[in-house]
Amino acid sequence: MPENNPAFVLQEVKKVAFEDRPVPQLRDAERDVRVHVEQTGICGSDVHYWQRGRIGDFILESPIVLGHESAGTVVEVGSKVTNVKVGDRVAIEPGVPCRHCDHCRSGAYNLCDDTIFAATPPWDGTLQKYYIVAGDYTYPIPDQMTMEDGALVEPVAVAVQICKTAGLRGGQTVLVFGCGPIGVLCQAVAKAYGASRVVGVDLSEARARFARDFAADDVHVVSREPGGGGDPVETARALGEKIVREYGLGAGADVVLECTGAEACIQAGVFAAKKGGTFVQAGMGKENVVFPITTACIRALTIKGSIRYQTGCYPEAVKLVASGKVNPRKLITHRFKFEEALEAFEVVRKAQEDTLKVVIQGVQS
Amino acid sequence: MPENNPAFVLQEVKKVAFEDRPVPQLRDAERDVRVHVEQTGICGSDVHYWQRGRIGDFILESPIVLGHESAGTVVEVGSKVTNVKVGDRVAIEPGVPCRHCDHCRSGAYNLCDDTIFAATPPWDGTLQKYYIVAGDYTYPIPDQMTMEDGALVEPVAVAVQICKTAGLRGGQTVLVFGCGPIGVLCQAVAKAYGASRVVGVDLSEARARFARDFAADDVHVVSREPGGGGDPVETARALGEKIVREYGLGAGADVVLECTGAEACIQAGVFAAKKGGTFVQAGMGKENVVFPITTACIRALTIKGSIRYQTGCYPEAVKLVASGKVNPRKLITHRFKFEEALEAFEVVRKAQEDTLKVVIQGVQS
Amino acid sequence: MPENNPAFVLQEVKKVAFEDRPVPQLRDAERDVRVHVEQTGICGSDVHYWQRGRIGDFILESPIVLGHESAGTVVEVGSKVTNVKVGDRVAIEPGVPCRHCDHCRSGAYNLCDDTIFAATPPWDGTLQKYYIVAGDYTYPIPDQMTMEDGALVEPVAVAVQICKTAGLRGGQTVLVFGCGPIGVLCQAVAKAYGASRVVGVDLSEARARFARDFAADDVHVVSREPGGGGDPVETARALGEKIVREYGLGAGADVVLECTGAEACIQAGVFAAKKGGTFVQAGMGKENVVFPITTACIRALTIKGSIRYQTGCYPEAVKLVASGKVNPRKLITHRFKFEEALEAFEVVRKAQEDTLKVVIQGVQS
Amino acid sequence: MPENNPAFVLQEVKKVAFEDRPVPQLRDAERDVRVHVEQTGICGSDVHYWQRGRIGDFILESPIVLGHESAGTVVEVGSKVTNVKVGDRVAIEPGVPCRHCDHCRSGAYNLCDDTIFAATPPWDGTLQKYYIVAGDYTYPIPDQMTMEDGALVEPVAVAVQICKTAGLRGGQTVLVFGCGPIGVLCQAVAKAYGASRVVGVDLSEARARFARDFAADDVHVVSREPGGGGDPVETARALGEKIVREYGLGAGADVVLECTGAEACIQAGVFAAKKGGTFVQAGMGKENVVFPITTACIRALTIKGSIRYQTGCYPEAVKLVASGKVNPRKLITHRFKFEEALEAFEVVRKAQEDTLKVVIQGVQS
Repeated sequence: MPENNPAFVLQEVKKVAFEDRPVPQLRDAERDVRVHVEQTGICGSDVHYWQRGRIGDFILESPIVLGHESAGTVVEVGSKVTNVKVGDRVAIEPGVPCRHCDHCRSGAYNLCDDTIFAATPPWDGTLQKYYIVAGDYTYPIPDQMTMEDGALVEPVAVAVQICKTAGLRGGQTVLVFGCGPIGVLCQAVAKAYGASRVVGVDLSEARARFARDFAADDVHVVSREPGGGGDPVETARALGEKIVREYGLGAGADVVLECTGAEACIQAGVFAAKKGGTFVQAGMGKENVVFPITTACIRALTIKGSIRYQTGCYPEAVKLVASGKVNPRKLITHRFKFEEALEAFEVVRKAQEDTLKVVIQGVQS
Repeated sequence: MPENNPAFVLQEVKKVAFEDRPVPQLRDAERDVRVHVEQTGICGSDVHYWQRGRIGDFILESPIVLGHESAGTVVEVGSKVTNVKVGDRVAIEPGVPCRHCDHCRSGAYNLCDDTIFAATPPWDGTLQKYYIVAGDYTYPIPDQMTMEDGALVEPVAVAVQICKTAGLRGGQTVLVFGCGPIGVLCQAVAKAYGASRVVGVDLSEARARFARDFAADDVHVVSREPGGGGDPVETARALGEKIVREYGLGAGADVVLECTGAEACIQAGVFAAKKGGTFVQAGMGKENVVFPITTACIRALTIKGSIRYQTGCYPEAVKLVASGKVNPRKLITHRFKFEEALEAFEVVRKAQEDTLKVVIQGVQS
Repeated sequence: MPENNPAFVLQEVKKVAFEDRPVPQLRDAERDVRVHVEQTGICGSDVHYWQRGRIGDFILESPIVLGHESAGTVVEVGSKVTNVKVGDRVAIEPGVPCRHCDHCRSGAYNLCDDTIFAATPPWDGTLQKYYIVAGDYTYPIPDQMTMEDGALVEPVAVAVQICKTAGLRGGQTVLVFGCGPIGVLCQAVAKAYGASRVVGVDLSEARARFARDFAADDVHVVSREPGGGGDPVETARALGEKIVREYGLGAGADVVLECTGAEACIQAGVFAAKKGGTFVQAGMGKENVVFPITTACIRALTIKGSIRYQTGCYPEAVKLVASGKVNPRKLITHRFKFEEALEAFEVVRKAQEDTLKVVIQGVQS
Repeated sequence: MPENNPAFVLQEVKKVAFEDRPVPQLRDAERDVRVHVEQTGICGSDVHYWQRGRIGDFILESPIVLGHESAGTVVEVGSKVTNVKVGDRVAIEPGVPCRHCDHCRSGAYNLCDDTIFAATPPWDGTLQKYYIVAGDYTYPIPDQMTMEDGALVEPVAVAVQICKTAGLRGGQTVLVFGCGPIGVLCQAVAKAYGASRVVGVDLSEARARFARDFAADDVHVVSREPGGGGDPVETARALGEKIVREYGLGAGADVVLECTGAEACIQAGVFAAKKGGTFVQAGMGKENVVFPITTACIRALTIKGSIRYQTGCYPEAVKLVASGKVNPRKLITHRFKFEEALEAFEVVRKAQEDTLKVVIQGVQS
């Protein structure tokens, strides 16, 4: 009896449906593997495609399976795959680059223009029973890690890449804007990597509470009303300087990790960084923002963008979770079965203050 | 008969005068030297203090001697000075840092808050017969270099620091916004350091012609009318992409050096940088600019501010000039005697298109 | 009544004595401080000068006070000192560089040839009631740190510099040769900075036990008889490969920290490093060793020497101790009063397997 | 009529022969290209396999075609190849890595254990009419470059990688041990990348003369009799210090590039490097050497091995040759036709002092 492959498909903007698709076959009979997907986290970008149909140059033009934060069990391996075998429980890195462009060849495969990235048009994602991926983009997880842990290796790997981009070293002070999933995971990775002080910033008292419990040494809650219609950049400067002063950041944070994309946070981050410090932009918001360039220049800041992951991020993320140094399972606020996927997406779309991470169980064998 | 020490003094905003000041004495009898100043270049910041009385937090509150790009002859040395001796012809590095703060101790003395910087309030500059400076901040120049060359080591050192900040390596492509003195010197240093292609950008056809003759492989002249009232950032994007396309910069410049401070150039520079490339902000203009942060992030750019100089910049600048690889004397468009200093400043203030560098001869012995 | 200043003096090789010396005065009335020394750790180099009278080019030619790992209380400050005040409890960084050479100016003050280093001929050390040092080379310690902790900030700072030299980042695997004080502190700093796995190596089972309790994930005890008169380099290769295989170091350690100076360890370390890995030589032993250069080359290793400390090491060491992440007090196996200093030195000279760190209390007020 | 594919084959140690082999087919119908080989340089390693049958772990167990420094014309391209097209003249990078291991994925493909490297057992080389290689490992050469230039891009790329490994920056002083092909090309690349002073070292006056003409600022010729049977390391120290003193290297060379593999040169190089300097081992000689580890440690040297090439080396080498900054054709001392290949190999084997580079023309169409 032929096996089925139920999938949760974005057919067009705002229209999702369950489809029974053919079981996918290895594209590269030597190097690919087939994974039975068992847990999938939902990310803001999944919802964005669902609601808007595009992110930047990636535009939904034909149906795609959603989902890209997944773990599962290997059920088939190509003839030359050596790092995993049938039966291994693995975290799946969702983007497999072309391996031939200069970015790939020089180690910056996160910049590859020809990446097959799960649930990014025109590529299918992981919210189906089976997913095909290159063997070297799957990573075995040890017994002490659950499949939920495995799925959440993805946002941990994002946080690892952000910290690597910052060149984070033990002993530094770190200021993180945002206490959503990426923000709190950055805080946890920074602590695990020896940051001497990690301070978070968020608008929500509930998120701040979680962040304090999870990893941060302290969290500043920003009042939504900055108080008084003044120049926004000066308001942001005041916020940045206040955080430095009140949260023990000396002459400014060694490292600022901006995980919100909000204009006011970007500005405040520049004013909160110490001379010679590093500022990493990880959050995505407006295309263009008013930026305090003279301050950035006089302080000789290093400002870098962080995007996706590079070699080593997934293995390091697995080690962080396996060792208990980072516990992403604590972020899970909602759990759904595969057939409740739409409900899961609705929870993320509504984005209540107490929603952090939503996971969807895979199709049972 | 006591010696005199004529000085060109900024007494208050817009008011300069010649004064006969006491011959300055070594502040540190062990480490300082006294230099007879023989040539001084004028920089935009000198004119800025003259006309406005302040740059950032540095505010003219009492008279200061102007001038900070100088060379001369050592006439007195402290008891422990070993790198120069009386009679040596030297270039003077104008800023001597505190040597005790963390910035100084870690090598980033350009960030020191307690620097004695010539002609920066409240510190006197070099447009006087004698100038006192720490011995290790004077650098012997060889016979083949003139005193004019020695004075112009200063802007060459600024360009060296900009290229170091960029981490410039041989074989890279470099796009430089601005063909004023710092811009063309950056182009020359980049060529000397093995850049495979150096492209300049300027508004002035005259400056562009000079830059092409001086060092650049090619220069793009930007029309002042970008043509059509559209979104300024999109206009800048079009400019950046056009330069990349038309001037052989492949998938974008490896390194962008922004030496104008102009908002449109900063924006165009981000769009002209390749993925994973480096953008250095060296020019100073508006405090805040509209900045394409999402593009900077997605391209994983490294953006750094460059300010002043660090250890090695002056010696490297001297070597570049002494070897003939960089010839800053070609930038001199006007020469004045000490007693014509006001006329010299007027030339810089009026800033005609064909004015590049103005130098003032020192007081004769 | 004039105050006294008892001192423990190395008068000539193998001859120490207590002397009553004049209370030392600030050499720089603006920048120096006077510290009442309260605890001092003994280091192998102190004993080396006592027994041999020289280390490298540093030769005992006139009497010097011994001791350089100290903490105490500030009793006098120069007029421009701002980082500490009278009454502050401080750790003392024992080497104050010239601040004027290129090494100092570029941040590598550990390489300065004109450093005043405590108890390094011809400079007096800290085993006296009062010690004069530059204010910026003293670091306040918080209340939760004892004076013993403060004295042992010195070897912690050495370990911090070794880890910085290695460019140690979170998630790396680290192999440390040597479980003496520097070795175990390197292991502890590496763990604090997020190393995913830290393995020690030593000849002594007692030291290995301590290291496992202190910080290491595991320790390999090397049998003194390598078994069989073969080629020493091949024996070292076998040792290196065995450690990699048996202690979970994958394709080799990301980072090897060599803290013994022993030829066999240096060799084994090269064979235990992964391709592209980093090897830091921190221990000092024979001037020249047989070195597997072809393996180092083919593996594209980065090999670096670590010496003393740079800016940031002391503050980071204080933070590590204050936070409890590194607890150097556990290393103290013997405590002596000031008047028992010779006995203390004898303990270190005899170097039993269970001797780790010996401290001497300062002269009481 | 089926086309033929004459090949110069190493059948067993010391036994070569011309064979008529089948025309090779693309292994990857999408990504590979077939090149008609037109010029091939001979390298010491080719001769080594011929005479000894092994280098390290690479052992000749079945016949292989020799040759790996080649250029030619593309005659067939896979369906997805975009960087070259039929008719393009290209330099061939001889090693194509697996693209799947961590070394490949992180940009260090020179460390890949599964590289298909031309003329390295069991892989065939380029001394045949046609050679199959991945399209992205061929690089178009412009019209002004001859096929000989194209073949010699290989050793230029080796020199580029050595200079990159050293982190060579403009303004540095560079000391290069060895004036063979790699040595003089390192000297030329260092000059092109802005080194302020490049000094070579060799035993041969003839090679030194060539090096001075080619690129070096100066060359020291070492007498073969170091004079007096003393300690070899002390002799090497004296040599290193003498070169620094007599050739204007200040406090030591910023960068030492060791391109001989000779023990005495390795030792002298350590003593000739300045404190904080960089030493790159590129030459291969004895497995183990007596190494001045204490000096390396006290000077805080960074010692790195350089091996093969990474992304960017070939494109940069092509640009250096195309621009005339490096002219490898000047190295060619002997030219042979394909059917004279054995004679060509004999010339390299005999290695007269005036032999630098030997090239073999490909089989005519």
